[in-house]
Amino acid sequence: MSNNKTLAQMNTDIEEARQKANFSINSMLNMLRGGEEAVKKLNDLRQLAENEPIFSKAETPFQSRQEQLYHSLLISKRMIELIEEKNMDDEQFANLFRHIELLTPAQGTTEQSDKWYTAAKRHAIIGCYAQTELGHGSNVLGLNTVAVYDQKSDEFVVHSPDITAAKWWIGGLGVACTHAVVQAQLIINDKSHGPHLFIVPVRSPFDLKPCRGITVGDIGPKAYGGFATTDNGFALFDHVRIPRDNMLMKFAHLSKEGKYTPPIHMKLSYGSMVKLRVDIVTDAAWKLGKAVTIATRYCTVRRQFHNPPSFKFDNNRPEAQVISYSSVQHRLMPLLSTAYALIISGEAMYTKFNTLMEQLEVNNATMLPEVHATSCALKSWSTRRSTDGMEECRKAMGGHGYSIFSGVSELFATFVPSNTYEGDNFVLAQQVARFLLKQLQNVVQGKEVTSTTAEYLNTLAEGTTNPYEFQNPNEEILDPNVQLKIFSMRSARLVADLGQQLQSGREWSDLNMECWSVNLAHAEYLILKDMICKVDTMRATPEQAELADTMKTISDLFCLSTLGYSSLATFLSTSTIHPSDLSRLNEQYRATIAKVADNAVALTDSFGFTDHELNTALGKKDGRAYEHLWDAVQKNPINHGEENEKLTKLVLNILHSGNNLEYVKASKL
Amino acid sequence: MSNNKTLAQMNTDIEEARQKANFSINSMLNMLRGGEEAVKKLNDLRQLAENEPIFSKAETPFQSRQEQLYHSLLISKRMIELIEEKNMDDEQFANLFRHIELLTPAQGTTEQSDKWYTAAKRHAIIGCYAQTELGHGSNVLGLNTVAVYDQKSDEFVVHSPDITAAKWWIGGLGVACTHAVVQAQLIINDKSHGPHLFIVPVRSPFDLKPCRGITVGDIGPKAYGGFATTDNGFALFDHVRIPRDNMLMKFAHLSKEGKYTPPIHMKLSYGSMVKLRVDIVTDAAWKLGKAVTIATRYCTVRRQFHNPPSFKFDNNRPEAQVISYSSVQHRLMPLLSTAYALIISGEAMYTKFNTLMEQLEVNNATMLPEVHATSCALKSWSTRRSTDGMEECRKAMGGHGYSIFSGVSELFATFVPSNTYEGDNFVLAQQVARFLLKQLQNVVQGKEVTSTTAEYLNTLAEGTTNPYEFQNPNEEILDPNVQLKIFSMRSARLVADLGQQLQSGREWSDLNMECWSVNLAHAEYLILKDMICKVDTMRATPEQAELADTMKTISDLFCLSTLGYSSLATFLSTSTIHPSDLSRLNEQYRATIAKVADNAVALTDSFGFTDHELNTALGKKDGRAYEHLWDAVQKNPINHGEENEKLTKLVLNILHSGNNLEYVKASKL
Repeated sequence: MSNNKTLAQMNTDIEEARQKANFSINSMLNMLRGGEEAVKKLNDLRQLAENEPIFSKAETPFQSRQEQLYHSLLISKRMIELIEEKNMDDEQFANLFRHIELLTPAQGTTEQSDKWYTAAKRHAIIGCYAQTELGHGSNVLGLNTVAVYDQKSDEFVVHSPDITAAKWWIGGLGVACTHAVVQAQLIINDKSHGPHLFIVPVRSPFDLKPCRGITVGDIGPKAYGGFATTDNGFALFDHVRIPRDNMLMKFAHLSKEGKYTPPIHMKLSYGSMVKLRVDIVTDAAWKLGKAVTIATRYCTVRRQFHNPPSFKFDNNRPEAQVISYSSVQHRLMPLLSTAYALIISGEAMYTKFNTLMEQLEVNNATMLPEVHATSCALKSWSTRRSTDGMEECRKAMGGHGYSIFSGVSELFATFVPSNTYEGDNFVLAQQVARFLLKQLQNVVQGKEVTSTTAEYLNTLAEGTTNPYEFQNPNEEILDPNVQLKIFSMRSARLVADLGQQLQSGREWSDLNMECWSVNLAHAEYLILKDMICKVDTMRATPEQAELADTMKTISDLFCLSTLGYSSLATFLSTSTIHPSDLSRLNEQYRATIAKVADNAVALTDSFGFTDHELNTALGKKDGRAYEHLWDAVQKNPINHGEENEKLTKLVLNILHSGNNLEYVKASKL
Repeated sequence: MSNNKTLAQMNTDIEEARQKANFSINSMLNMLRGGEEAVKKLNDLRQLAENEPIFSKAETPFQSRQEQLYHSLLISKRMIELIEEKNMDDEQFANLFRHIELLTPAQGTTEQSDKWYTAAKRHAIIGCYAQTELGHGSNVLGLNTVAVYDQKSDEFVVHSPDITAAKWWIGGLGVACTHAVVQAQLIINDKSHGPHLFIVPVRSPFDLKPCRGITVGDIGPKAYGGFATTDNGFALFDHVRIPRDNMLMKFAHLSKEGKYTPPIHMKLSYGSMVKLRVDIVTDAAWKLGKAVTIATRYCTVRRQFHNPPSFKFDNNRPEAQVISYSSVQHRLMPLLSTAYALIISGEAMYTKFNTLMEQLEVNNATMLPEVHATSCALKSWSTRRSTDGMEECRKAMGGHGYSIFSGVSELFATFVPSNTYEGDNFVLAQQVARFLLKQLQNVVQGKEVTSTTAEYLNTLAEGTTNPYEFQNPNEEILDPNVQLKIFSMRSARLVADLGQQLQSGREWSDLNMECWSVNLAHAEYLILKDMICKVDTMRATPEQAELADTMKTISDLFCLSTLGYSSLATFLSTSTIHPSDLSRLNEQYRATIAKVADNAVALTDSFGFTDHELNTALGKKDGRAYEHLWDAVQKNPINHGEENEKLTKLVLNILHSGNNLEYVKASKL
């Protein structure tokens, strides 16, 4: 293996791409990660995690699910030790937990009185949150598990009427949990009061045997090998008795006499649902960022085909970098801008969420509908686009993208269920549409829409249905006001159309797809607005001003790729854009994509992922993709020792059947 | 578990849906599968496969890749025994092989003289086909492995200059193969003659040890757990000597004196590439059909939410069938029509391919460019749409779609690499565009386009750029001539635009995305044309005439969903459709989707998949999804015996740390 020219070229390619940056990677990193202090904290956490050999994922690709589960339990054990060793507080522990991204069995939630909390914290018990049932996921009101109050004994009888009521998908319930927080219909004197929460012991903390009346176990592997380190479990309850005290009474209350007091702070619990969705948006952003980082780096160092094409074998002339293909740029750069945009929008959402929570604490719920709708729109948009985007990144990497060592398939496998959990995206879209229709009513009634995220509906009062009138589309489209105007026109028209369809007598249930279009358009408007706002803020912030132009270009690419490609259909179908303007808009799109592509490696470096975090052979910082892939494969147990012997023996058994051995000898094969 | 009402309802739901069919499922099955005789043959094959317990995939979800590989070797062994036991001929064996869909290590290709063929057939040797390299996949001309002719010894010296030249991804090379058919640059007297094929012994048939100068092994797991039963391998050659005879000389020839005669029948080898792509199109059709069958059945029996919504817990009122949601119909029914359309187009392609091969045998290559372009367009379109479609089916199944037991994720995992192999889809798109641009030149030069698949370009001579003028869009759109007219207008305009872009000076390499759009539009035109043609043929065929209306509805849905949704953007951007016609077209789309939805279960039954083939818990014929899922999970090794003990021990280790046990006793938890 003397000729290492090609290999050295890979490192040169990535370094040259890195040097081309026309902005400071370090400043961008600090901006994205929330400042120097935050970056330092993150690095400390990384240091801690990388120093723990047990946290390494190097063996994962070669393990069965059972082995992966065992490994993740070992990690849980080590993490608990670390709390004491490093004297970690709750926040540090939570950060470490998030950072290592290993979904472990011990992640169950226990939000209860001191009694349960203390026990769970010292891991004397392990809790989980059991809502979903075999036959009921999205529709919480339709859950079939019941908790019937028995006043005589001051107990609840928790029961699953049939297997469709079995709790299912419950993280931690598969092998590890001792106690479950169970959502069940509260029944008092034959009257149902809807779903409430009950703490039900499921396994003995002494020997982990199922408690009386409980059938419990693990539901098996997930699609694409995802979530392999989580023991999602099931449980059936056969008239299980628990004391009245085991009902979580923070919200509702039941007296010994059977007097029920319904929850008063319902809206506070809404808050935590919003929080979960905001977390998902941020997760979507960074995970997409990882996929884009890997794909951009690999496509920078991968060379394939001569450009212009050559039909002669010429080992001395380097082929073209794959990142230089227009199709590869078109597939990756808009995703890069999407990752940036979602980081910014996630940040903005956190700010709004915190304000909401402060107001809710003083019983002011004015912001709730809007923040709720925003969180639904962004959650459904971001999970769909980021998981589709991860797969696109993987495909753009060619054949090796299909190796487990690309590291991209794992991102998709563990994140794709986000399309379903915390509200199925198509269900959430209906809630967004409902919110906007309510706002639309104001316009219809001649009033102003005051909700800041929907004030664009006011423009409907102008009554125009013409396309936006450009003079010079390719220049004007860079004006943020024009961009926002176009995005709001489209969204407003889709909302208005939905309203008209309803008025014309179509059923709500027949309008799912119209809601979906409204949802996408609304989300894209919100994200673009956040980006534009961020660029303005950056210009006004001394330490970020130098980055504002770069961010403006990313924002422009988000706008242009949405307008010209991913959502082109609705811009045209609503006549927001006239087809004759497309070719000039497309010119600007190409110019913008070229600007971003020139900085692509630097822009992905700015996410600041370590090689350890990325867990990839193909997208490491040094660009030496083929060497790392080679190294990863050498660890394959199939190539060595016992595993290899076992397989070899069986192959020889096939080869040597009949008189094959003599045949081979005779034929000198 | 006394209340089995919900469970019984599931079976009732699927049976009622089945009974609604307004056509004969059996006739449709015969039509799709090529007649009664073919169905009988298939059933015999199924019987054979189902009688072999070793062929069962029931344990697969719980196995590590090593175990899956071992299992697939056991299957290979059994299959070889079956050849003798059942006295199978080559075709029967190949059919069985395809049918069980287990990619086994012993699938390597050996197309060589009798010597190799006979040895491989009796499994005295195991062959594989080694083309792709670590650093070279798509670009065959750029392969780096060399075979240098050494006239003195009458041998070739096969060598990999560096690790980027390592053969990679080679199916069967990981653990099983003894001989590889290697693509390498033929070098004679320092002159390269391009890639040629050489048989290189890689492992001894006696002990399976690597031959001298060979480094060989398995490249490890694939994305999403796909291809787990194939030992894709790598090999490095360090000056490996093979006799001159080991060069495959069917096409090119090299004399002992070093005189090289280039291939004359190059075009025949093109033929086999076309064949591979046609096979992929058909595979895409049936695999998508499986996913749609599973999703349609599960969504028919799954109930979720009351319709209209109810905010009270009411266990007695059944919730709505998920298949009744307009979003679910919109996501699944167009995919159902796509599966049908691809079966039809695949059939049509086989016919064209056979004619081509007959003509090539008599050195007539007139049809080649057109058939080649058609195969490229359909391969790239079908693999993209069918794999995207499988994921959409999975997502439409809600949370349980994410269980391995849905059976859909496995389809995606093993078929998604088809986007890359046998020509990366984006590379193929360029070849389609090149073909169409050549045809366009005729129009520009005032000549007629004679190629039947591209004659629509002739309409460009009319010079109109107006949208199609509808009087009553919702009625006219059902006229096949109107449908074809619109699809051809769009495609022609995209080709013309691509030509203009080139003429205006844009680089070919800058036009990848324009080629992609052309490719999609051309493929959709071809498929629609095949469907329309099929409906006509069916009307004229006595035993199929009764099905023609049903097929017409499916064809209409393919047309309307492509026009109104999946490819709406280009119909509007080319001004083929005016936005003002969309609402009436959409009316017809909804009416058509409703017709197909009414027959959905019957239309998927018509594919004729057995439960065994579908390998699903959620989409079995009897609709009892939850019971089957429950049963599948009970086999989970994590819930029993040794595996369970091992995990339990570790959890107890965590629970009992410090004085937790005493704490639990004291707190009575």
